[in-house]
Amino acid sequence: MKRDKNSFAPTPPMGWNSYDYYDTAVNEERVKANADYMAAHLKEYGWEYIVVDIQWYAHKAGSMREKYQYIPFSKLEMDGYGRLLPDPERFPSSAGGAGFQPLADYIHGLGLKFGIHIMRGIPRAAAQEHLPVKGTDATADQVADPSSICGWNPDMYGVRACPQGQKYYDSLFELYAGWGVDFVKCDDICNTNLYADNRYSAAHEVEMLSHAIQACGRPIVLSLSPGPALIEKAWHYETHANMWRITDDFWDRWDLLKDMFYRCELWQSHVAPGCYPDCDMLPLGLLGKGFGQERPCGFTREEQRTMMTLWCLFGSPLMLGAEMTKLDEWTLSLLTNRDILGMLPPRCKPRQIRLDGREAVWKALDQETGEGYVALFQLRDEEGAVRVEAQEFGCRAQDVLRELWSGEETRISEDGILQAQIPAHGCRVYKLPPRG
Amino acid sequence: MKRDKNSFAPTPPMGWNSYDYYDTAVNEERVKANADYMAAHLKEYGWEYIVVDIQWYAHKAGSMREKYQYIPFSKLEMDGYGRLLPDPERFPSSAGGAGFQPLADYIHGLGLKFGIHIMRGIPRAAAQEHLPVKGTDATADQVADPSSICGWNPDMYGVRACPQGQKYYDSLFELYAGWGVDFVKCDDICNTNLYADNRYSAAHEVEMLSHAIQACGRPIVLSLSPGPALIEKAWHYETHANMWRITDDFWDRWDLLKDMFYRCELWQSHVAPGCYPDCDMLPLGLLGKGFGQERPCGFTREEQRTMMTLWCLFGSPLMLGAEMTKLDEWTLSLLTNRDILGMLPPRCKPRQIRLDGREAVWKALDQETGEGYVALFQLRDEEGAVRVEAQEFGCRAQDVLRELWSGEETRISEDGILQAQIPAHGCRVYKLPPRG
Amino acid sequence: MKRDKNSFAPTPPMGWNSYDYYDTAVNEERVKANADYMAAHLKEYGWEYIVVDIQWYAHKAGSMREKYQYIPFSKLEMDGYGRLLPDPERFPSSAGGAGFQPLADYIHGLGLKFGIHIMRGIPRAAAQEHLPVKGTDATADQVADPSSICGWNPDMYGVRACPQGQKYYDSLFELYAGWGVDFVKCDDICNTNLYADNRYSAAHEVEMLSHAIQACGRPIVLSLSPGPALIEKAWHYETHANMWRITDDFWDRWDLLKDMFYRCELWQSHVAPGCYPDCDMLPLGLLGKGFGQERPCGFTREEQRTMMTLWCLFGSPLMLGAEMTKLDEWTLSLLTNRDILGMLPPRCKPRQIRLDGREAVWKALDQETGEGYVALFQLRDEEGAVRVEAQEFGCRAQDVLRELWSGEETRISEDGILQAQIPAHGCRVYKLPPRG
Amino acid sequence: MKRDKNSFAPTPPMGWNSYDYYDTAVNEERVKANADYMAAHLKEYGWEYIVVDIQWYAHKAGSMREKYQYIPFSKLEMDGYGRLLPDPERFPSSAGGAGFQPLADYIHGLGLKFGIHIMRGIPRAAAQEHLPVKGTDATADQVADPSSICGWNPDMYGVRACPQGQKYYDSLFELYAGWGVDFVKCDDICNTNLYADNRYSAAHEVEMLSHAIQACGRPIVLSLSPGPALIEKAWHYETHANMWRITDDFWDRWDLLKDMFYRCELWQSHVAPGCYPDCDMLPLGLLGKGFGQERPCGFTREEQRTMMTLWCLFGSPLMLGAEMTKLDEWTLSLLTNRDILGMLPPRCKPRQIRLDGREAVWKALDQETGEGYVALFQLRDEEGAVRVEAQEFGCRAQDVLRELWSGEETRISEDGILQAQIPAHGCRVYKLPPRG
Repeated sequence: MKRDKNSFAPTPPMGWNSYDYYDTAVNEERVKANADYMAAHLKEYGWEYIVVDIQWYAHKAGSMREKYQYIPFSKLEMDGYGRLLPDPERFPSSAGGAGFQPLADYIHGLGLKFGIHIMRGIPRAAAQEHLPVKGTDATADQVADPSSICGWNPDMYGVRACPQGQKYYDSLFELYAGWGVDFVKCDDICNTNLYADNRYSAAHEVEMLSHAIQACGRPIVLSLSPGPALIEKAWHYETHANMWRITDDFWDRWDLLKDMFYRCELWQSHVAPGCYPDCDMLPLGLLGKGFGQERPCGFTREEQRTMMTLWCLFGSPLMLGAEMTKLDEWTLSLLTNRDILGMLPPRCKPRQIRLDGREAVWKALDQETGEGYVALFQLRDEEGAVRVEAQEFGCRAQDVLRELWSGEETRISEDGILQAQIPAHGCRVYKLPPRG
Repeated sequence: MKRDKNSFAPTPPMGWNSYDYYDTAVNEERVKANADYMAAHLKEYGWEYIVVDIQWYAHKAGSMREKYQYIPFSKLEMDGYGRLLPDPERFPSSAGGAGFQPLADYIHGLGLKFGIHIMRGIPRAAAQEHLPVKGTDATADQVADPSSICGWNPDMYGVRACPQGQKYYDSLFELYAGWGVDFVKCDDICNTNLYADNRYSAAHEVEMLSHAIQACGRPIVLSLSPGPALIEKAWHYETHANMWRITDDFWDRWDLLKDMFYRCELWQSHVAPGCYPDCDMLPLGLLGKGFGQERPCGFTREEQRTMMTLWCLFGSPLMLGAEMTKLDEWTLSLLTNRDILGMLPPRCKPRQIRLDGREAVWKALDQETGEGYVALFQLRDEEGAVRVEAQEFGCRAQDVLRELWSGEETRISEDGILQAQIPAHGCRVYKLPPRG
Repeated sequence: MKRDKNSFAPTPPMGWNSYDYYDTAVNEERVKANADYMAAHLKEYGWEYIVVDIQWYAHKAGSMREKYQYIPFSKLEMDGYGRLLPDPERFPSSAGGAGFQPLADYIHGLGLKFGIHIMRGIPRAAAQEHLPVKGTDATADQVADPSSICGWNPDMYGVRACPQGQKYYDSLFELYAGWGVDFVKCDDICNTNLYADNRYSAAHEVEMLSHAIQACGRPIVLSLSPGPALIEKAWHYETHANMWRITDDFWDRWDLLKDMFYRCELWQSHVAPGCYPDCDMLPLGLLGKGFGQERPCGFTREEQRTMMTLWCLFGSPLMLGAEMTKLDEWTLSLLTNRDILGMLPPRCKPRQIRLDGREAVWKALDQETGEGYVALFQLRDEEGAVRVEAQEFGCRAQDVLRELWSGEETRISEDGILQAQIPAHGCRVYKLPPRG
Repeated sequence: MKRDKNSFAPTPPMGWNSYDYYDTAVNEERVKANADYMAAHLKEYGWEYIVVDIQWYAHKAGSMREKYQYIPFSKLEMDGYGRLLPDPERFPSSAGGAGFQPLADYIHGLGLKFGIHIMRGIPRAAAQEHLPVKGTDATADQVADPSSICGWNPDMYGVRACPQGQKYYDSLFELYAGWGVDFVKCDDICNTNLYADNRYSAAHEVEMLSHAIQACGRPIVLSLSPGPALIEKAWHYETHANMWRITDDFWDRWDLLKDMFYRCELWQSHVAPGCYPDCDMLPLGLLGKGFGQERPCGFTREEQRTMMTLWCLFGSPLMLGAEMTKLDEWTLSLLTNRDILGMLPPRCKPRQIRLDGREAVWKALDQETGEGYVALFQLRDEEGAVRVEAQEFGCRAQDVLRELWSGEETRISEDGILQAQIPAHGCRVYKLPPRG
């Protein structure tokens, strides 16, 4: 009996991801420390996933960072079936064949969920060594596609569309489900950007992942990366995955944040329970240590509020990119604002009202309950008024709305206009009064 | 007070369009005869629009058909403000400044609605003659954009994004609303395909049309053509228009019908009340007289049922391209099948379950009422079985479904499979049992 | 008997063009003044063409410069056959049907040659008015292609590929040959850039121009604009024209000059007698008055020498864009340097030796005489050494070369290296010693 | 002292290539047999190269032909420095480290030259095994670029642009020059077609090959494959290589042969001594055994003459794809026609006179001697007249020309026309009379 993959993530996943701070150099100790922090300070607000990002299987990962992000042809920890295992040096509890099970147990013990990153495909080394594919007569060289590679990471070959290839993915998820993995972020698959003429060249591997999850019997959330996802493949993502990146890597730069308004315009009709266009990690707090230098988030506070407002109102997954144990009060307040996080569940359908390069206006309405929000965004580089007609979001003259970040109340004017003076790159977001 | 354009077409518009049979050569007598037929035989099934398609304003239109579809630089009937009027030779009642008002009155008198086709822009002749723009100090040469033309029709220039340009469109809709026009199909606007690098170059004219409709005070349905519409502009179409063509001209060829499944996959999340991705006219019955030779529809009966099923289940507008007075019994039966037409109202959200080049499966479910449909399409060139798991559309083993075209009942198998033997290019569509 | 069009321009044309200084606002008085200057100061160095550039036929051209470069749908001076004539207000001698004959006579009287600019096609007004095509039963609306326009100038429609269309071009060149025109620069034809999918959409009009020149009996040099010319059409340009622009409009900006090295690399095999890839006008001296503000050339002196060296060594036509009567001594010295101009005749085949973004090295050798040059270009933004092995241009250790701009002699090193210290954006060009 | 690479191939190389008949399954015995044949029957006509094409280093090459052309991740014969060696099973004389030296010796002993095919890059297995790069401290994993692969062959990784990468290529050519290799056809380099956005991504490897040839001290002819070569990179090919493929794989199909006229039009200005745009192998005689089925050439005799005429007149290298020992009289006659082969040396510059999809006309003239040819090609699918004006190739009325295939004489008409009745896909080629 097939299980509905949408039930694996009925609301947008919220969690932490190791990449923005640790790059490839994350280790068990730091994962646990971040999990402890989440359990203590963020869990009650809905944050629950702890995701170990790229190259947890690579020996000496990050040790040649000035030259390579990913050391080519380096040693990868791998079992006899070509399945990658945690690097035991960085993840000591994985030694002796335990894999990520001990770490998953630890995280589950905190009441949290555990996720890992994988690269699409089968290790290049497995293909070169002709390792057997578990449960088949085939060997890795037969299921690996030598002309399907990732443009930026040297670890894998794509898997051919064949029954033995499916068996490889099945064996992988059998292993990872056995460890207790709850979330898999698969990379080099949402947009196989090396192939300019065929950016969805791994469509069959998306299907294989989806089948492998069904076969493994565990409700593993499937996240596809990197973006930008291809809008003309929306149905395929929605059918097989839970979230897909709608942008290339997002970082703390205003041009990228401004650009996200265009991406959200594009994808707004595709947010639904179990189906989340993904705006990528929230680069907040301290960042970048694994990239060479720890640094604070480069967004202004107004920009940080704009990001949180857009992600929540739009219904993006929320994956924090930060070293949580070093979070300051301000950042923590962003992540624990119940009013803002309250917009997230996808009951309220997001809908752009206006976008013109200088301002953006969005609403989100729940058809059943009448609950709703309206948000005004100042995209200019200077303060100014942003206005919208109340009828665009179903309100009337003299209605009173509460602004969520400030808690202040605002009255719609007699001629039916909601207006706010908003600083550069900032926003105002209002909860609509109950109807009737 | 702005009116909600979605209220102008709460369900997909159903009507008749002169193009597929008459090309540019339609005239008043034939429009009336078709309207009479609709009132007598189709109105009770929901058919209501009578739309006069391209070049009703062009003298001698169609007279050089072996050489040109649209005679270049020919005489267009035009008032002193550069607004096109019906060719009085073909539309005698329009003489003396009456325009389409007498014809609209006649159609309204039958309980039907009246629509016309326009080309985006202002007549080239108006620009060359420097005609005044009504309500302004400007002249047509100032609002016409000399580098914005249609690639396939020689009549117009695009209108510049400026207040006087808006006034031109306002004056146009003031005139047409005054005649009693209920529906405007605007061409060369949905995809300005001459400009390969800028296929939505007339975005500002879409907005101007939308504003002109608001300004004219009449609830005119706005239809945009030609396709394929650009999926990345979906929000813009939805915000300003009621329907937009998702395909280039559709005709009675299987390759085009098969291709429509891919287009419907692409646009399925964008069907909503007042917002209709448009699969184009239904080329049924007799066709093509204005193109040189009257001929019967080239689709097999199975293909015709497939087309009707897809258009209705998907929620496309239904615009009949045919000479209605010559409809045979078979074709009439297609257009008056209440079970099939009953799928049309967009309460039921369409959703593709599968598409692989050999078969397609769709469902449509009404979240509130539990009403629903599932359709199986045979895309192969030969008969064969098509199957789908019942859980994909919310049914269970042993549930009994009624097939709408045949009226026959089918039982879902014990292992939860719905299966049908379907001839080449044919379909089966089932009404789901009530839930609960 | 067909004449060899290559014989019309056995060496790269040298002359003056009104555009860079006057834009559309050139007039008879200024043309004469510039011709007088050329005859007095430049003719002896080979300069001979006086070319009147765009819109000499347009009434009030340039009068709305803050709004339009080309006033849309304005009055064009035109004869009864749809052939454009000089605006009599700006070119008084053209009145009464004389056209450019009096001006051509004046220029010929100075021992110079006379050229004009035309836009590809037939005037839009002629098509709208159905003017007769001379020598045919056809009218302009029949030969004009309503979907073929220029993206940046509103005056014309393209001419259809048909015998009557050829007759239109024949009648045009009959008229212009009768005036004594020696050179025609046809615009919107070398790259019809409005049509991104079909940038050589007017190929048939290139052929029609070529045929019309043969038919008119006068050896008119044919120059095609704008660029960039399409390298895959090189054979077509070479077969039908004398020069074709290999760049979009060139102005006095270093990025454009640096980019020209890449364009010359691309076209170097296509320089031959009567066939000249065209690097565009030399924007020297005073510029831009017609564009709103007279201003001096923005190139440094080093850059000006680099430009002159590259154009001459490569074999580009030399068309001066300047108000000649205001030339200063420095600029005049550039234009009258016999050593530099001496590289121009295409006996010496240009050949790039190296290009890498930081430096460029070219040679030009005459296979028959052994005459030759080598040029070193400093593309960096700072001074530095540029070096080349002498064997690359056929010299040996200890050979002595003369640098043309400075007159200084340089000896090739013992290990066969020619090296020079060159300031930012500057060059050194050496005459090779005679062989043998 | 750098040697002029153009001197390595002063005329277009003529030879035999194993691919069209043997695919990957060529062996020593068959190479020798073909060499023997060439020495006995073709050498006196200028044929001299014996080229062993792809995968001579791969064990079991061709043994899974129904599934793979190139078996992925199979065993490649390789030395300790990651340099590929002949498969000793197919090339027994190579055993014990002798490599291709014994075979090269044999071929040299026949008075012929020896060539091999290589894939761009360094073996994937060498990178995976971290083999040392000869003459450096580096290992293969450091010079291999993991994101640079061939789209159709699984053997190699591209080499990074770094000094150690150059050393790898240097070591490769040191080995191959030591064997006595005279000709290297390097594949996956002329158009790296996997990368649609960067089809000349291996430009730096072209330069590395060129340097390695200089460093090895042997005049090795460098041939680049596959096509189509990029016209905008013409200067780079000319600077570093001797021949480059202007087409994707050419086979015995008329559509490909007809298309070659467009490719020759494009490249005609780039034929010069030592620089040859390459029309690919001549698929004559028996073909295809290694592809699964031996079959005769599919060209008609007219088409075969057309091919030989175009290749020779244009100046393409001539590489025979056939099993020579099975050549019939007809095919042998094509390859030993001294009149036709006499057009080949690039003294005579090829020049297209006309091409319009129905016919093509070319000339080739030697500026110094006045020697020349004119060829008429019938591209239609039926017989018909082809004509050209004699002045296009410098002849006059009443001149008498000899047709090379038939030996017959033809007189130019009184009005200066050369005309011939030519069967479908056929040609006539005439030697021009001496001038003067």
